[in-house]
This record gives sequence, C-alpha cells and structure tokens, in this order.
Amino acid sequence: MRQDLDRLMVERGLDALVVSGPVWANPAMAYMANGAVLSGGYVVKRRGRAPVVLCSPIERGEALASGLDVINLARYDLGSITRASSNELDAAVELHRRFLVDLGVTGRVGFYGMADPGRSWLLLRALDERLEGITVCGEFGPTVIDEARATKDEGEVARIQDVARRTCAVVAQTVAYLQSHATRGDVLVEADGSPLTLGGVHREIRRAIAQHGLEDPEGFIFSLGRDAAIPHSRGCPDDVVSLGRTMVFDIFPRTSGGYFFDLTRTFCLGFAPPEIEQAYADVLDCVRMLEESYRAGVETRRYQGMACEFLEGRGHPTVLSDPRTEHGYVHGLGHGVGLAVQEEPSFANTVHNSTVLKSGHVFTCEPGVYYPDREYGVRIEDVIWIDAAGNPRRLTEYPYQLVIEM
Amino acid sequence: MRQDLDRLMVERGLDALVVSGPVWANPAMAYMANGAVLSGGYVVKRRGRAPVVLCSPIERGEALASGLDVINLARYDLGSITRASSNELDAAVELHRRFLVDLGVTGRVGFYGMADPGRSWLLLRALDERLEGITVCGEFGPTVIDEARATKDEGEVARIQDVARRTCAVVAQTVAYLQSHATRGDVLVEADGSPLTLGGVHREIRRAIAQHGLEDPEGFIFSLGRDAAIPHSRGCPDDVVSLGRTMVFDIFPRTSGGYFFDLTRTFCLGFAPPEIEQAYADVLDCVRMLEESYRAGVETRRYQGMACEFLEGRGHPTVLSDPRTEHGYVHGLGHGVGLAVQEEPSFANTVHNSTVLKSGHVFTCEPGVYYPDREYGVRIEDVIWIDAAGNPRRLTEYPYQLVIEM
Repeated sequence: MRQDLDRLMVERGLDALVVSGPVWANPAMAYMANGAVLSGGYVVKRRGRAPVVLCSPIERGEALASGLDVINLARYDLGSITRASSNELDAAVELHRRFLVDLGVTGRVGFYGMADPGRSWLLLRALDERLEGITVCGEFGPTVIDEARATKDEGEVARIQDVARRTCAVVAQTVAYLQSHATRGDVLVEADGSPLTLGGVHREIRRAIAQHGLEDPEGFIFSLGRDAAIPHSRGCPDDVVSLGRTMVFDIFPRTSGGYFFDLTRTFCLGFAPPEIEQAYADVLDCVRMLEESYRAGVETRRYQGMACEFLEGRGHPTVLSDPRTEHGYVHGLGHGVGLAVQEEPSFANTVHNSTVLKSGHVFTCEPGVYYPDREYGVRIEDVIWIDAAGNPRRLTEYPYQLVIEM
Repeated sequence: MRQDLDRLMVERGLDALVVSGPVWANPAMAYMANGAVLSGGYVVKRRGRAPVVLCSPIERGEALASGLDVINLARYDLGSITRASSNELDAAVELHRRFLVDLGVTGRVGFYGMADPGRSWLLLRALDERLEGITVCGEFGPTVIDEARATKDEGEVARIQDVARRTCAVVAQTVAYLQSHATRGDVLVEADGSPLTLGGVHREIRRAIAQHGLEDPEGFIFSLGRDAAIPHSRGCPDDVVSLGRTMVFDIFPRTSGGYFFDLTRTFCLGFAPPEIEQAYADVLDCVRMLEESYRAGVETRRYQGMACEFLEGRGHPTVLSDPRTEHGYVHGLGHGVGLAVQEEPSFANTVHNSTVLKSGHVFTCEPGVYYPDREYGVRIEDVIWIDAAGNPRRLTEYPYQLVIEM
C-alpha cells in the first residue's frame, strides 16, 4: 500500500524516487500521480515526505487533481537550459540537476516509469556520472513502487469491485447477444441470414465495454476453436460462430485511467462434446481447489506446482513435466491486477520468486488446458483478494457455465 | 518509411536493433511487429535483413500476423537459464546472449521500446559489460525507428485518412448532441429538466468514439470556460454546459492498435462574445497562414516563430517574447501523428532541433490563445500531410465554425 513506500525505501536504501513518462500504460506514474492525467513531467518522492508533481504549465490544471504539491517546470527555465547545452542529453541532465537540487535530493535515487530503454540508459548513465551527490539506482525485480502497488487498501478493492461488476455485465450482455441469434445447421445467423462472425461479436463486445463505462486499452480475447487452443490468440474476425466449439472470452477492461479487472470464461454454444465437458470440469475443479487454498504467508510459486499436479492427476500434460509443452496446461497460473492488467504479486514458479501472499493482494487464478490438434481450449479465470484476515475472497461473481443454451 | 531503416542504421553505425515491451503505448514495438498484438517478446532487426519476432509460445498465433519470421522463445530454454542464474538480471542477460548469438548479431546494437528506466539501465549496462562482441547503443534524440516512422507511405496515409473521417464524424455527432438540448436561461437542459454537465457530454463522446470503431487510449479534452484556458485541462465533469463560453474539443483517437488522428475545434453555444470572436479569427488566420506555408525542405522550428510573430501582430502575448507566459499563445505549434499521438517530426523551436520537413510527414498545426483570467481559450488543430511533391495537404475535413446554433 501507499503507506509502505517509506518502509520499502528504507529497506532498499533509497533516499528518493523519480518517476516519469506519460501516465498511459505507465502504472508507476499513474499511481504516484494519484490518477492525475499527465502526458509528461515527473513525480519525486523523498523518503519520509509526500510526493511532489513537476509538470508543464499547460498541465497545471490536471496536476492539481493529484492532491499533491505541484511545481511548475517553467521554474527551471528550460529555454536557458537548452540554449546553454550542447545537446538534448546535456539539457536533460541539467534539468534533473536543477530540480533535484531544488528539492534537496541527495544520495541514492531510484528511477521509475516508462521510457525508451536506450534513452534511459544514456540518461541514467549521465546522471550517475555527472550529478554530484546522486547515486542512480535501478531495480530489476519488483520495484518499491511495484511492491507498494501490489497490496490494495479498501478503497482500491472497492474500485476493483466496481470494475468487476461492470465486467460481469459485459460478459452477460455478450452471452445474451449470442443467444439472440437463430441457427442454421450448426451456424449462428444474423437477422439478414448471413453467418455471425467473430468480428461481429468483437464489435458487440467493444460496444458493451463502452456502454458500461469501461475502456479496453489492451483489447480482449474472444477466440474460437483452434484459436481458443492458443492462450493469447485473440480470435480471427472472419471465423463463423457455430455450435459445440469452445469459445474463450478473456476480458480485461478498466475504468478510465483506473483499475483493471480480468475475467475469463469458456463457453460452448448449444452443446459441448463430452471431451470438452470433461476438460471444463477438470479446470473448474482445479480453480475451486486453488481458490480454497490461497492464504497469506504462503509462497506464491507453490500454487503453480499445485495446479500442475492437480491437472496431471486428471491426465493433462503440463509445464511441470514438460516446460515446452503446447498441449494441456501450458502457461503460468496468474498475476496481480491493479493499475496494470499484470502486476505483482508474481506467481512465477522459479527459484528467484520469493513472493509470499499477503493481505491486500488482488490476483488472478486462471488455469486452463489447450489442445491445438483437437481445436479446443478451456480457461477459467477468477480474481481473488486476500482479506485482512489473510483469507481468499473471490471478487468475480460470474457463474461457471460451459454451455450456453440456444 | 520502413524502407529507410537500413539507410538510417548505416548512417548511425548500427548493426542491429532490439525492440521490446508490450505493444500497447509502445509505438516502436507496434511498428516493428507490424501491428501484431504481443504482450512481450522482442523484434530483432539486423542491418540489411527483415526483422524477426521472438515471442512466448502462448503468443505464437498472434505473432504470425506480423508477416515476419517468428522464433519461439521456448527455443532458448528459459527454465534452465533461470535455474543456472543467480538472479533475474543474470537470467535476462543470458537470454539476450542466447538469442543474439543464435541470430548472429554482433557489433553496435541499439535498444528500443518501452520499459522501466531503472530496469533498462541495469540491463543495458550488464549487456554492454558482459556480452562479447556487442556494444550497447542508446539514442537520446529521435531514434532510427522514430525517423523511419516519421514519414508515412501511401498505405499509412490512407489509414490516417480513415481515422480522420471517423474522428470528424464523432465531432459532428457531438455537435448534434449539444444542439439536441433545450436551454433554460443560459443553461442547456436534459429531457428531465436537469442541467447538462460536461460529464454527460464526455459520456456521449466516449459512446460516439466506440460507435465509430475508434478507441481513445489517452482520452480526450472537452473543456469549458476557465478550463478551456489551460491547454491540457480535460474539462470538469460537474461543470454545467451554458451558452456563450468557449468549449475546446481536442480529440485524438485511433483505430484498434493502429494510427491516431488529432483534431481540435473550439465552439461557443448560441453566441460568442466579440472578444472571443476576434480571438477565434486570429487563431484561424494563423492556421491558414501556416497551412499555406508548410513545404518540404524547411526547418520545422521556423514555424513556431512564424506563429508567434503572427499572433503578436494581432496583440496576443506569446512564448516568443515571454517563454513563461500563461496568457496568449503558450505552447508549441504541433507534432507528428502516427502510431503515437505525438511523434516526429518535432516542431520544437530550439537550437538542437534540426528537423526539416519532408514528403511523408504527417503532423498537427495547432496554435491557440488562452486567457485564464477571462475564462476562455481558443485552439484550432488540423493535420497536415506533406505530399510527394513536397506540398501541404490538409487531412482534416471539418469546418471552422465557432458558434453552434442552438
């Protein structure tokens, strides 16, 4: 949580944090700027003090929404910096020098946000070499900001629950849209008799997302049959929607500039072949087993092993016995959800992941099984919150129902 | 253009480019992956050869949409790399070593995309120190990829024109929505008699954006009165819409994962006070003067001076005479538009900006004047394309009309 930042900075020996980049697709900046809509500028946090926003004068109105102290970057006289510098890198170093001196920042300074990697490398190398009293620090694993963001306070959980309700409404509306179609043989048909395509379903989903006050900056997955058997395939718009094949609907919208949700359901229209029914039962039982087992204090990497063992017990290949398998359970178990679709806590089953579940973690549980040669995949994804008592609470209130009656 | 990449790499002494990060809000990756929807992985381009995509097996389906050769990252045995590495940074260095060796990359390698700056610094420093035969290069100004992206081919211009048409339709629909309201005194009222708020207008705009097959990952500006006098203020949802005040509508949507457009019009409902009418005429005359003057071969930084001189001639303060003014013309003149809302060419009026207009450049022309103490602002923004003959072609087909009849 936000109040953990100072403790984390002490633990990692950081005297200040400098966060930069537009807030879009930049959750560190969105978090530190308290949701203010900034297309540039900086947030600087000194240990033991509230963050301050440094922004262009044309964004001074939006910066106030952060509730933080706002410094107008014009104070540092960018024009004179540029004229006195031999190139843009030198000018950027001088701007950093001026505002760090102005804010009294010295010591070990971490740099965060989003930027071009080569540009960051040149800038941070120059700052480290040239700024007196400043040691540039990077963090390769989860940063102090990632760690703070990973545990949500009650206000954040309430906002995620709001997105959850809207997301479930979009899924329900999509199901109703599918059910509103007549069939001709195995194929769903539109009112004019033409076959319903995934492209048509995608349009309806986008419409429903907007209608429910959500946005989908990273799109969604609504895939069919063979594409449903490749976890991140989004669905081919030309595919014709037909009965008895799996459709994987993985939707991860957010409220404007705010928190994401992430929900997956797998559907078959009209009926499901017995093999798919069984795969669905296996995945659902795995979800249920996991959702009862999450507890504060447990290492997150253990759950992937539990999922793999469970699904292998049901006869599915998994990445536990063959890390390169493309059949059966082929991916990771889940990830934190918040201002990014994917954030801490990590559930990676690797020796370097020492993450332990904590109260306030909000994360997905999303096992699945995939059979490209048999043209189907099944995935079920819920979002779990570890409550103050350390117990799991499901934030996804959407039924598990494979077959959509037509 | 894409075909310029090899020439630019020669000019800058680069043997290979490594691009990384999810494609969202990461135009370098979106460009190099030809629009394939990838949440991670790499695109590697060796000089003189087509780029290749390296991706997770769960994204192998989407990667094919790039039309490029696809390498499954599972080939490099990530599990064994992780087990043999003492931390995640070492594992990342080893993964880079394996794929760069596999692709025969040596020499000077540039790194691009989007990532956390501190993380990039640690990674590129380690790659530079530890990878034999590799010299890590960063670019601080416009990168080779930025330069290639800056000039659009005919297919790209056609796609931008498509977004332009849809964007104009959204603006027209918003105007019609405003006109559909009755007034009570100076205030617009909804069917139930309650005052129309900016929040209501914002919802309608979002609905229209979705309806026209667009998305708005960076939102939009629809601001009123005092907020319209601060260029990047988005508009306060609680403000009541009333007659005779300026409304700045700056909309910059894109098609899904594709090209952006950027359009600004300023409106007054019912009538415009004479001072605002005059300010509008000044800005519009400035736009017209500029739009006739753009030519291939001219340094972009010259146009800001022309805009300032023109507006000062009409009695407005500008950043030319007072770089810190918050009254009059207070910002830059424009920017390139493409896979990012703001990209090359830069129109910054600084000594370090040596950009020259070229055929294929697509960019905004957006002067404005702002008077916070008098609670109004006026901005007009068109998009210009420099055609093959080096002449300006306006891509924005939307009328200039300050007053919306009610």
